[in-house]
Amino acid sequence: MSEVFPKDTVEIVRSHVREVQDFPARGVLFRDITPLIADAEGFKALIDMLADHYRGKVDAVAGLESRGFILGAPLAVALGVGMLTVRKAGRLPGPVVGVDYDLEYGSARMELQPFTVEDGHRVLVIDDVLATGGTAGAAFDLIRQAGAVPAALCVLLELKDLGGRERLGGDIPIDSVIAY
Amino acid sequence: MSEVFPKDTVEIVRSHVREVQDFPARGVLFRDITPLIADAEGFKALIDMLADHYRGKVDAVAGLESRGFILGAPLAVALGVGMLTVRKAGRLPGPVVGVDYDLEYGSARMELQPFTVEDGHRVLVIDDVLATGGTAGAAFDLIRQAGAVPAALCVLLELKDLGGRERLGGDIPIDSVIAY
Repeated sequence: MSEVFPKDTVEIVRSHVREVQDFPARGVLFRDITPLIADAEGFKALIDMLADHYRGKVDAVAGLESRGFILGAPLAVALGVGMLTVRKAGRLPGPVVGVDYDLEYGSARMELQPFTVEDGHRVLVIDDVLATGGTAGAAFDLIRQAGAVPAALCVLLELKDLGGRERLGGDIPIDSVIAY
Repeated sequence: MSEVFPKDTVEIVRSHVREVQDFPARGVLFRDITPLIADAEGFKALIDMLADHYRGKVDAVAGLESRGFILGAPLAVALGVGMLTVRKAGRLPGPVVGVDYDLEYGSARMELQPFTVEDGHRVLVIDDVLATGGTAGAAFDLIRQAGAVPAALCVLLELKDLGGRERLGGDIPIDSVIAY
């Protein structure tokens, strides 16, 4: 249960998250947020709740490709700040800063255009899920490389058993709407 | 020049679109919308303008992966309707409907979860760019397969030389903010 967000709104959000067994692979319980964003009231309640929480505290919102875009874009508009996109390598035209990070098997690279963020701006990183924390940690690095400040990480769903919160350390606040 | 959207807002939008030569391949002039969405005033002006235009006319917004998510999500929230995601094959847990469509070389498949849209709902399809129209046409098919009605296509940038408008036919209105 979230301790930072209002319980009644969190329950609305939770009621629209669908559990899907064996996706994307056998043995995985996938939590599908598409019914939430397809529900006009549920989606608006979520964005309003996040905007109330972060209003005045951040100067930009960075959405992580690609479900983070669905949460980050309306939140940026609601907060009246700009939106940054943290994308897989090769998707953004340069100049970019890049970070390689480890996956369970192999590695991946995320990129950000540094000219889209102002020096010293406080940037909220947002994604749908916090799992191992690899992508979020890469986003923090990219924001620092671009001269800005990662202010907080917000995720809709935190999968506690995967240890992302511990791996990211305690320096940057992590707010999860629902923790499993 | 757009004929459906207010000229002054269109000019604000246009001023934030960056031209990048030779991306993603030599000889291609890429129009980068990240500076627009990173600009708080520009992004809000765009979403407000689109919301004013479509208010009361659509029951849901379908964003095309993945830059369409950045435009579709805040527009859905502003309109008070739900958002659908049209995604590349394999990204959405089932049940899904799918459409294969031709690319310049080879083919691709897009999918939609039919349970996220209500029968008969008028769905606005939104994406950043209209090029050949392949993805947008696939989205129209998916929406029909799901029992809903493609009401209009909205794109930020239309690349007229690529013939997307002609290929899509004249049945469904196509609104481009900027046409090149």
